Amino acid sequence: MSEAPRVDAPRVKVRLGENNYGKADVQLFKVFRDTPRHEVRDVRVRVAMTGEFGAAHVDGDNTDLLATDTVRNTVYALAKTGFAGSVEEFGKELVRHFVAAGPRVQGAFAEFTEHLWSRIEVGGQGHDHSFVRQMPKHTARVEGDGQTFKVTSGIEELYVLKTTRSGWAGYLLDEPYTTLPETTDRVMATFVTARWEYAVDECDYDDVWARAYRQIQETFTDHYSPSLQNTLYRLGEAVLGRCPEISRVWFQLPNKHHLPYNLARFGLENGGEIFHVDPEPYGLMEGWVERA
Amino acid sequence: MSEAPRVDAPRVKVRLGENNYGKADVQLFKVFRDTPRHEVRDVRVRVAMTGEFGAAHVDGDNTDLLATDTVRNTVYALAKTGFAGSVEEFGKELVRHFVAAGPRVQGAFAEFTEHLWSRIEVGGQGHDHSFVRQMPKHTARVEGDGQTFKVTSGIEELYVLKTTRSGWAGYLLDEPYTTLPETTDRVMATFVTARWEYAVDECDYDDVWARAYRQIQETFTDHYSPSLQNTLYRLGEAVLGRCPEISRVWFQLPNKHHLPYNLARFGLENGGEIFHVDPEPYGLMEGWVERA
Amino acid sequence: MSEAPRVDAPRVKVRLGENNYGKADVQLFKVFRDTPRHEVRDVRVRVAMTGEFGAAHVDGDNTDLLATDTVRNTVYALAKTGFAGSVEEFGKELVRHFVAAGPRVQGAFAEFTEHLWSRIEVGGQGHDHSFVRQMPKHTARVEGDGQTFKVTSGIEELYVLKTTRSGWAGYLLDEPYTTLPETTDRVMATFVTARWEYAVDECDYDDVWARAYRQIQETFTDHYSPSLQNTLYRLGEAVLGRCPEISRVWFQLPNKHHLPYNLARFGLENGGEIFHVDPEPYGLMEGWVERA
Amino acid sequence: MSEAPRVDAPRVKVRLGENNYGKADVQLFKVFRDTPRHEVRDVRVRVAMTGEFGAAHVDGDNTDLLATDTVRNTVYALAKTGFAGSVEEFGKELVRHFVAAGPRVQGAFAEFTEHLWSRIEVGGQGHDHSFVRQMPKHTARVEGDGQTFKVTSGIEELYVLKTTRSGWAGYLLDEPYTTLPETTDRVMATFVTARWEYAVDECDYDDVWARAYRQIQETFTDHYSPSLQNTLYRLGEAVLGRCPEISRVWFQLPNKHHLPYNLARFGLENGGEIFHVDPEPYGLMEGWVERA
Repeated sequence: MSEAPRVDAPRVKVRLGENNYGKADVQLFKVFRDTPRHEVRDVRVRVAMTGEFGAAHVDGDNTDLLATDTVRNTVYALAKTGFAGSVEEFGKELVRHFVAAGPRVQGAFAEFTEHLWSRIEVGGQGHDHSFVRQMPKHTARVEGDGQTFKVTSGIEELYVLKTTRSGWAGYLLDEPYTTLPETTDRVMATFVTARWEYAVDECDYDDVWARAYRQIQETFTDHYSPSLQNTLYRLGEAVLGRCPEISRVWFQLPNKHHLPYNLARFGLENGGEIFHVDPEPYGLMEGWVERA
Repeated sequence: MSEAPRVDAPRVKVRLGENNYGKADVQLFKVFRDTPRHEVRDVRVRVAMTGEFGAAHVDGDNTDLLATDTVRNTVYALAKTGFAGSVEEFGKELVRHFVAAGPRVQGAFAEFTEHLWSRIEVGGQGHDHSFVRQMPKHTARVEGDGQTFKVTSGIEELYVLKTTRSGWAGYLLDEPYTTLPETTDRVMATFVTARWEYAVDECDYDDVWARAYRQIQETFTDHYSPSLQNTLYRLGEAVLGRCPEISRVWFQLPNKHHLPYNLARFGLENGGEIFHVDPEPYGLMEGWVERA
Repeated sequence: MSEAPRVDAPRVKVRLGENNYGKADVQLFKVFRDTPRHEVRDVRVRVAMTGEFGAAHVDGDNTDLLATDTVRNTVYALAKTGFAGSVEEFGKELVRHFVAAGPRVQGAFAEFTEHLWSRIEVGGQGHDHSFVRQMPKHTARVEGDGQTFKVTSGIEELYVLKTTRSGWAGYLLDEPYTTLPETTDRVMATFVTARWEYAVDECDYDDVWARAYRQIQETFTDHYSPSLQNTLYRLGEAVLGRCPEISRVWFQLPNKHHLPYNLARFGLENGGEIFHVDPEPYGLMEGWVERA
Repeated sequence: MSEAPRVDAPRVKVRLGENNYGKADVQLFKVFRDTPRHEVRDVRVRVAMTGEFGAAHVDGDNTDLLATDTVRNTVYALAKTGFAGSVEEFGKELVRHFVAAGPRVQGAFAEFTEHLWSRIEVGGQGHDHSFVRQMPKHTARVEGDGQTFKVTSGIEELYVLKTTRSGWAGYLLDEPYTTLPETTDRVMATFVTARWEYAVDECDYDDVWARAYRQIQETFTDHYSPSLQNTLYRLGEAVLGRCPEISRVWFQLPNKHHLPYNLARFGLENGGEIFHVDPEPYGLMEGWVERA
């Protein structure tokens, strides 16, 4: 079979820049069955390596490349003994392994999305070996050169809402583009994404996560919110107060707008009861809160 | 501007068959604020009408068509006074209205997907006006001619899993295509979709839903499962036992395969600990369980 | 390990109703390499069987059940020799096999979503073995008892839009809920789902599909549309005219609303230029067009 | 209504770090109707501002905040006169506006996902005002302080596949984890994401995009690929050769594995015809190619 006629882009001098490769969306599930009360870990894993991979890219020489299939096998194999606690600890194990595994590897990172399962309640008791999936997720990222690690943890898909004690008023009027009326009582809803860095090299990552997760929900309830920006700052302040292990925390808070539907046209008073949930567009706030 | 040259498909005699139209994915949110302890309802609604709509289809005569924008307005307006309890009751209200609204309307249906919100816990107590979204959903469909109604309710996105007490053995060997080994201890996981019909014209739909939802989870835990088919039957039997209001119940149970990863290749014994969660394909079981 | 305490739903007399089981989302890809100009078929397949499966459901006796893993193996094995042309023909092959495969099987169905790939163009020519994925999909469903078949084919994810020659006027005013102004020039956009049945037992299914697919697009362009309902009818009439093999055709046409943005507030005239694409809710029209 | 009892996280000293806010997923559609041959632009827009927003975050003082609703209005209003060509040029217009709009704004960015529409073909001619949606997307990001801009453009959802002329061999064996056999003839498929930066301050962004888009597809066809890494490098080299305006280009190339199904178990030879498309996990390659 002959090649397609060569499509000639003019030849120019180029070089390989920053790059990485590995395996993504590895679906790993681990059961801890030491006692009749089983525990489960359900994680989506991405592992990637960085290093001197010029030969493969430029010359098509795969000699120093680990197959991504090998990466996959390794994740499952290391999970047997190396995944005993948090995904963050497992991430360190994976990074250590992959930095050592390839002759040209200089660094590696592992990213996790951990699905959370609660015990099914039977007669008021959590069942020993039956579970029901929760919506929020525990995320984590571990990056390193084999010696030192940068660990980030976070939360995804925590959807919270309050039906009062929030407003949006006193903002800048930009004529003629500002048409939104002020309000001091609205529905506020947001789909929390959080991510934090650590002030310490080692800690009980699951315990920190549980405290942050709980604190975010509690703080969300405890104040009149004049803006999602102010709530973002309060969430950050509270997480840093509750978790001395955390050095700084970032939030992405979309404003899932719940708009009072105009019922006056139909001779009805809305009374803060009937809302349209507008899927798009949405206000989007992002920011870090750090120790001063 | 001139028309595009007419593309002539040969003319043939045709007629309009069964048809309906309306508004879909209306995002309705209602807050009940009679007391400081607020309640919320968060529903995606589709409403459609059936009837004699030939003039609009065949002749382009819209005289007897309600605009779908009007349908949308009506859903929000009726929600103010007509949406006091379950989506099923609201569905009857909507069907009654739309059958009366259009001169050519003979029937209508309303479909609902209700998102569930739990109260955020603060100090062990559910908060008065702050909520966190849950994953499972309450679905419902009400169809009628204005006088009588057919109501169906259901559950979506209830993801349950057990780490033991299930197997798959003794099945038919179809040579040469059967390659799967038997097992009497596996991880069984399924994403429950349920739907049921009623033996009564009226009942407390939310209460029935809560009982069915709880019973499905409890029954999932209480037996050794030789197959998802047997579990499907047991779930149905238990729901019918717990809920005399229900005449029959349907389940769709995908088998979310958790496959033991082959670690023997790496000199490791798996021991029922390390699984790959295979996203596709999956076994899929569907069936009705009915009163005998 | 002891069982969880039995959760007792009251025992009632129940029986198994209509049911089926099989494998879903089998991702099958076939390359035809008889000549250097390769052809590809990329399909998502669901296969399910119906029959007398009471023993498995009621008694947990799997003796007569084919494993869904076997179903998967079989789909790939039969694709080698039995998938030479259209998915519809392959569906008949699958149904024939599965009805014969199980002692208790009485019927079977196969559902397909076929992804379409075009040849990558190089120098104005379609390449021999390189392809680029298209958005629209070819769907099909074949159901049968092994002797006779019911075949349905269709189109999904064909997103079409016209910037003029459509309107919405002269509709019913339902006071006070109708607030939408009339228009005789709007943007009309819809995400076409079509499904059709056949007047013949055998035909060149791919050729019919290609004609219907082309005709739907051409007819979409050729008229002033007073409503999506009228366009639905015209699409049906044209498909039936172009394809004598088709007995009737169903469309689902969501009205992807493109709403003129109110720029008058900012001292600007819109002039039919600036639109907000509203994701939800949307008008939804469904209907059959049949031979008279 | 009394507040929930204050949940006291210990108070610590914190400060606001890097932050931004704005509006996301604005769905803007523009029709150019100067001549009967209409043109359309269909874009999802995110706009965000950075600056001194401490008062809002820390003190709940919104005085200097633009409402995100105002941001939305502004996007539509500016689109009337300021969106005459590429999204990249429109992005500069938006950044200029928002940096000027707020007293505390120091910078802004605009992100775009542009959906592509082809003209529907009628009688071999593209229609004047009827269009069909394509799968690939044109992405762009413009960031700036009002004076200077950093522009990035890219491609998303370009799914390409070749049925031969690719392999994976000669890679590192990492015992015992490497189990994958070598191959010199496989199906290679990837879902191209590309992103590039510019060597110039101004250019015809749409023309550059069209050349890059075409070149990527042509280069994908023109070589035996020993790895996705090598193909990534070749794609980059060709884009830089074809587009002198581009300074460097980044690709993310997932390896959408098409695995030969093991038919030998059924007494069949596969012959490179029958593949399982494995959705997860997948190899993932990312890298920059730059001018040397």
